[in-house]
This record gives sequence, structure tokens and C-alpha cells, in this order.
Amino acid sequence: MTKHRYDTKSMEAHASWRGKIEVTPRVSVGSKEKLSIAYTPGVAAPCLAIAADPMMSYDLTRRWNLCLVVTDGSAVLGLGDIGPEAAMPVMEGKCVLFKAFGGVDAFPLCIRSKDTDEIVRTIALLAGSFGGINLEDIAAPRCFEIERKLKAVCDIPVFHDDQHGTAVVVLAALVNALKLTARTLEQARLVFSGAGAASIAVARLLMEAGAEDLVICDRQGPLYPGRAGMNREKAQMAAVTNKRGVKGTMADALQGADVFIGQSGPDVITAHMVRTMDRNPVILAYANPDPEIDPDEAKAAGAAIVATGRSDYPNQINNVLAFPAIFRGTFDARASDINDAMKRAAAMALAGMADGGDLSSEKILPEPTDPRLKEIVARAVFDAALASGVARIKR
Amino acid sequence: MTKHRYDTKSMEAHASWRGKIEVTPRVSVGSKEKLSIAYTPGVAAPCLAIAADPMMSYDLTRRWNLCLVVTDGSAVLGLGDIGPEAAMPVMEGKCVLFKAFGGVDAFPLCIRSKDTDEIVRTIALLAGSFGGINLEDIAAPRCFEIERKLKAVCDIPVFHDDQHGTAVVVLAALVNALKLTARTLEQARLVFSGAGAASIAVARLLMEAGAEDLVICDRQGPLYPGRAGMNREKAQMAAVTNKRGVKGTMADALQGADVFIGQSGPDVITAHMVRTMDRNPVILAYANPDPEIDPDEAKAAGAAIVATGRSDYPNQINNVLAFPAIFRGTFDARASDINDAMKRAAAMALAGMADGGDLSSEKILPEPTDPRLKEIVARAVFDAALASGVARIKR
Repeated sequence: MTKHRYDTKSMEAHASWRGKIEVTPRVSVGSKEKLSIAYTPGVAAPCLAIAADPMMSYDLTRRWNLCLVVTDGSAVLGLGDIGPEAAMPVMEGKCVLFKAFGGVDAFPLCIRSKDTDEIVRTIALLAGSFGGINLEDIAAPRCFEIERKLKAVCDIPVFHDDQHGTAVVVLAALVNALKLTARTLEQARLVFSGAGAASIAVARLLMEAGAEDLVICDRQGPLYPGRAGMNREKAQMAAVTNKRGVKGTMADALQGADVFIGQSGPDVITAHMVRTMDRNPVILAYANPDPEIDPDEAKAAGAAIVATGRSDYPNQINNVLAFPAIFRGTFDARASDINDAMKRAAAMALAGMADGGDLSSEKILPEPTDPRLKEIVARAVFDAALASGVARIKR
Repeated sequence: MTKHRYDTKSMEAHASWRGKIEVTPRVSVGSKEKLSIAYTPGVAAPCLAIAADPMMSYDLTRRWNLCLVVTDGSAVLGLGDIGPEAAMPVMEGKCVLFKAFGGVDAFPLCIRSKDTDEIVRTIALLAGSFGGINLEDIAAPRCFEIERKLKAVCDIPVFHDDQHGTAVVVLAALVNALKLTARTLEQARLVFSGAGAASIAVARLLMEAGAEDLVICDRQGPLYPGRAGMNREKAQMAAVTNKRGVKGTMADALQGADVFIGQSGPDVITAHMVRTMDRNPVILAYANPDPEIDPDEAKAAGAAIVATGRSDYPNQINNVLAFPAIFRGTFDARASDINDAMKRAAAMALAGMADGGDLSSEKILPEPTDPRLKEIVARAVFDAALASGVARIKR
């Protein structure tokens, strides 16, 4: 991990904060009368109302707005498996973002287990205490199985932000980048570097949105059916992508391609490889903290649009653009799921926000601190939840 | 459950609150610079510091002040097994009290399981995310086993408030009641009605504090070795109490007794039974919502001091006097346990607070809203943690 200029500042700040979140009362208990209403004996009445109809928990407790942010600490930032306690600064930070940008109450839990079934069971046993679940920083391929199993047993939405939040933001960025370079999603040739959880989720959402020509590469090169060295997820993707049957290396795949999409590691593509792509290519190189190619170098090699994961370059691919507003819309609709229709709606709303008259190659995404996110994107997600039949709100 | 005059008010209040707690940020993320310090990339530094030394989680995250309030929903108030979702209004209320009266951040979880080992495993897997665990509203005898097993596997304090919080407050009340009636704990004859979790915890703490003559009665009468119809906990208590070998009924046990201690149900003792006790007896009748005997009736029958669980009579036996300050002192000492020495210290501090010059038969306990609780009682617990060797604070 690169020593970063924020390291010292951040250590000092964390030591002075002693926690980035706290649990605060919304009611006063400063008198016996108030105690009797908020606690015993008055509290028996709402308890009995929920016992009679568990959905009343959304009306009488914080459940309607409460998101569990949960990890096993196995894939924290770029730090790898640092364990549950050490994951907590990231988790607390995530909860801050949920509230600051989505008005969502989020609480962090780090589970001391690396066993898929035990993690699933633990989270499932807590599902009655929350309105939704955000999986965080769980290593692939475990994260796929945990998400799939949780969705099967939980009656509340389950969202793995590292996959789906990323996918939403990349789709939004791509929609605007293609518009600016006069391309269509259906015809664009897309090459992926990285076949981890996020890359595969991005590829899936892009296909759901209409993309047809994708080549996903891992370190061995393009995925294709029957290739050696593929896990279950890669094999599944190999079967539905790479329709032109590209083999060889990523450099081969990039020849003539319109778009590079990377969440892999630093310096995996060169200026020469960019020059072999189609004219005015789009480079979405969001490995963190160091992108797949230096943005200036990519521009010099002819890239029309470059996006990274960094806040010090234009066009930051940042999940905070998506997850707070997605949960806001989901909770407002009391949705039982966060489905592809809702993710696509979030991406299109994000793209539309950046396309508000000043769309440019340096601004294909809105700013994370834009206060309209929580209105416009959340509203789009809310509407999509209603239209797709997963909303449970009383109308 | 008696329809209570607060029912309608409480339903309306809960529907307007939509949650009695929320999760709030303690830091601002309103600029890119601030985001970079509180979240990525700066957050990597505190993560790595905790990975190197997990105890740093007490310095760099909220763990130092964070209590898990957890239930299976099996013994909620007097309502019985109403399930996890329905327990949440009580749990949220408890968390409000923790913060309002102890400055402790408490978060509620309701576990969808009734299996002891599964509940223990679930809580244990979350122990790295909290500084302490408060078990709540779990039915006996499961609560004993859950507490015992959790204490064995967790490196943070585990406290079952229904047992130990009650015991602390009863000990405090008893100390002052005995003082007012010129008795000593060592010589007083104590008769218990109820052999559930709370009664047994009270009996144990009183013995720890010096009580020697206890007779514990369940519905079949006094416990004694070899009696039929006793579970493991009752048999254990039978072996260490009832040194005079009292048999028969509770009425028999009460003859000549100094103190009645009840957490059983309404109207289990009569004025006649009070008259058979020693002169100026002490009646601690704190079954909720209706005491073991009407306080006025007990007074008329000669009781010198009566305490109940109700806020509309003098001398309310109320756990809120204890648990917020106990956790405050425990967290300030970074204690690994809440042991008997700490519980006794809390009780003596509580008794001393009521004995501040105006001790009377109508005021043997301080008011729950007394702001000194969080200082005086917490300080006593802190000191006891240090003296008993369970504190882990850096001095």
C-alpha cells in the first residue's frame, strides 16, 4: 500500500474522533411521564402491535430507515484480509456516507468468521432488526455466494456495494462517455481488465442495459468457454461474453476496442495499447489508489475520455454517487429487493444529472457532494421499485 | 396484560417518532479533503494500525463506548415470547436510556433464533464490533447458559441486565431499608417470591454482600435440597440457601421474616402474611406492572418500608438506576468483565446517594433522572474495576 499524504492527518483525526458515528436518541426521557411513554409501561402497546403484524415494525421502530453495513474484513480497501476489528474504520466511514448523502441510518458490524454459511446464517438471524443489508469488503468468490444465499433467505433487500454500486456508477459514466464520443452501448466494443466481483457485476449490468460486445480479461487474458484457470463465476461470464471469440492477451483484445474498463491494478495498459484502440477511445481506469494507466498518458495517447477512482482527477468513479441514494429510494419504497431495474434507473438518473447542459469529457459524472443526488437518483430508484413490483409501501 | 393508561399515547408517539434512536455522524464529509481523511484513502492508516494491534480499535473507532443490546425476544417485559421484531420498541427504548443516563452508545439487535448455542455463536461473532454486551429480555433458564457461555468466549464484558441490574438496585434499596429499620444484612431473614433469573441473581448478589439467611420460594414453596420440581438453577440455590430448612408454603417462610423480596406476580402475599412477619418489616414487591401486594395495604399491615417497580409509588426498583452508570464506569475503565465487586460498588454508591441527609422510608433510592448517577455510580464501578484487576485502561 502506497504511503499516502493523508495517512498522518487521518491517524490524528481518528484518534481525536474516537469513532465516526454514534447512536443518538430521537426522544426525550427526562421526566417520568416521558419515560412511561417511550419505555415501560407504554412501550408494551407498540410491541404488541408488531407482534400482531411484523410489518408494523416499519412504522413503529427505526427499521424503515436502518441499513446493516456488514463485512468479514476479508477484502478491505486494497488492504486485503485485515480482520473484523481493523475493518471498522472503513465501515464507520461508510455509515457516515450513508447518513450524510442518503439520510440513511447505517450501522456497521464486522463478523469474526470466514465461513460462508456461518456469515450467511449470522446476517440472516439479524434481518428482523434492519430494513436492508449492505455487504461490504467481502472477498470474491465468497461474496457472490453470500449475496445469493442471503437474497434467498432474507425478506429485506441485500446489496453488495462493491459489486452493484460500482456497476451503477460505471454504467452512468459509460452512458455519458458514449454519448460524447457518438457511440451506442449496443455497438461499442468493451474490454474489461479484471474478473473479480466488481468487474463481473459491472459486465452484468452493462449487458442488462444493452451492451453486446464485451471481452473480460483476467491476468491470463480474455475469458472464453473452455479456457483453463477459471472459477465458476468466470466460466459463467465466459459463456455469455466474448462473442467474437477473442483469445490471446488483453493487448490483443484491445485492438480496435471502443472502451477500456479496468478495476485491476496499476499500469496494466500502456500508451501503445491505447493507440491500438478505435479512434477517441474511452478509458475507465478505476483501480485504487493507482489507475491502470496514468490519465495524462492516456489522453496523450488519444483517449477522448478518461475516468479514474481518484478524487484528484476529473471523472471520479466513486460508489458514494450511488449507494446512499439507492438505499434512500429503496427504503422510501419499502422495497423487498434492489433489482436490476432499480440499478439501471439509478445509473440513468446519475448520467442525466451530469448531462444537465454542461456535459463534457471532464465531467461525465455529478459531484459526490451534489445535494440533488438524494432527490433525483433516489426518486428514480423509488419509481423503478414501484414499476418493478418490489415496493411494499402503502399508497 | 393490563390495558394501561399510557397505551394510546405511546402508540401515537411511536408512530410519529418512527424510531427512538438513529445513527449519526460525528464527522463532516462535506468536502473532498474531509472525505479523503474520514474515508478513502486516509482511512487505510487507522485500519492498518488496528490490524497490527486490535486493542487500538478502542482508540480509533467507537468501540470504546459501544454496547450491544441484544435479545431473542423470548421474555419481553411481561409480554412473554413476542419475537424479535416486536421486541424492538423495548430495545430501542433501552438504547435511549443508555445514552441519556450513561452517555453510552447502545445499538439493538434482535436475533431470530431460540437455540442457545446459535444465539451464543451469533453474538460471539459480533464481539469485535462492540465494547460490551447487554443481554436483554431472554427467557430463563436459557439466559443463564447464554450468559455463561458468552462470558467464556468473549473478550468484552457481558451483562444480563434483567439479572444483574435488578440485583444491584435491590441490594441498594435493601441496604438503606435495613439501615432505616436497624437491621443488618448478615442477620436479616430474607424471603424471596420467585425463583426466576432475576430473583436468583438478586439472591446471589445479596449473599455475596453478606446476607446469610435467605429462603427462596417458587410456586411450590421454599426451595430446599432434594425437593421435587427444581431445575438446575433452583437446585443450586437450594443447596446454598434456606439454612434453617424451612419447608411448606411461602406463608410459612414469611413467619418472623424481616424482608420480603418479590419479582413474581400480583397479589401473592396478603396483609395477614405481612402481619406474621417481624415487627416493621421491609417489603420489596417489584413485580411489574402489578406488585405482589398493594403498597397501601402492606403499610396498613405494618410494613415500615415498601418498594415496588412502579413509578407512581415511592421507592421504585428501576434498573435504569444501574445499567447506564455501570456501563459508563465499565467502559471508562475499559474493563474486560463486570464482576461482583463492580456490582456491589454500584449498589453501595446508589445507596449512598439516597442516604445524602434525606434518607427516609419514602426515599431509599435516588431518582432515575438524577444527573449524579452517571458520575458517582460510574466512578464507583470504575474504581472497583481497577481494584479487582479487570480494567484495561492505559494509566
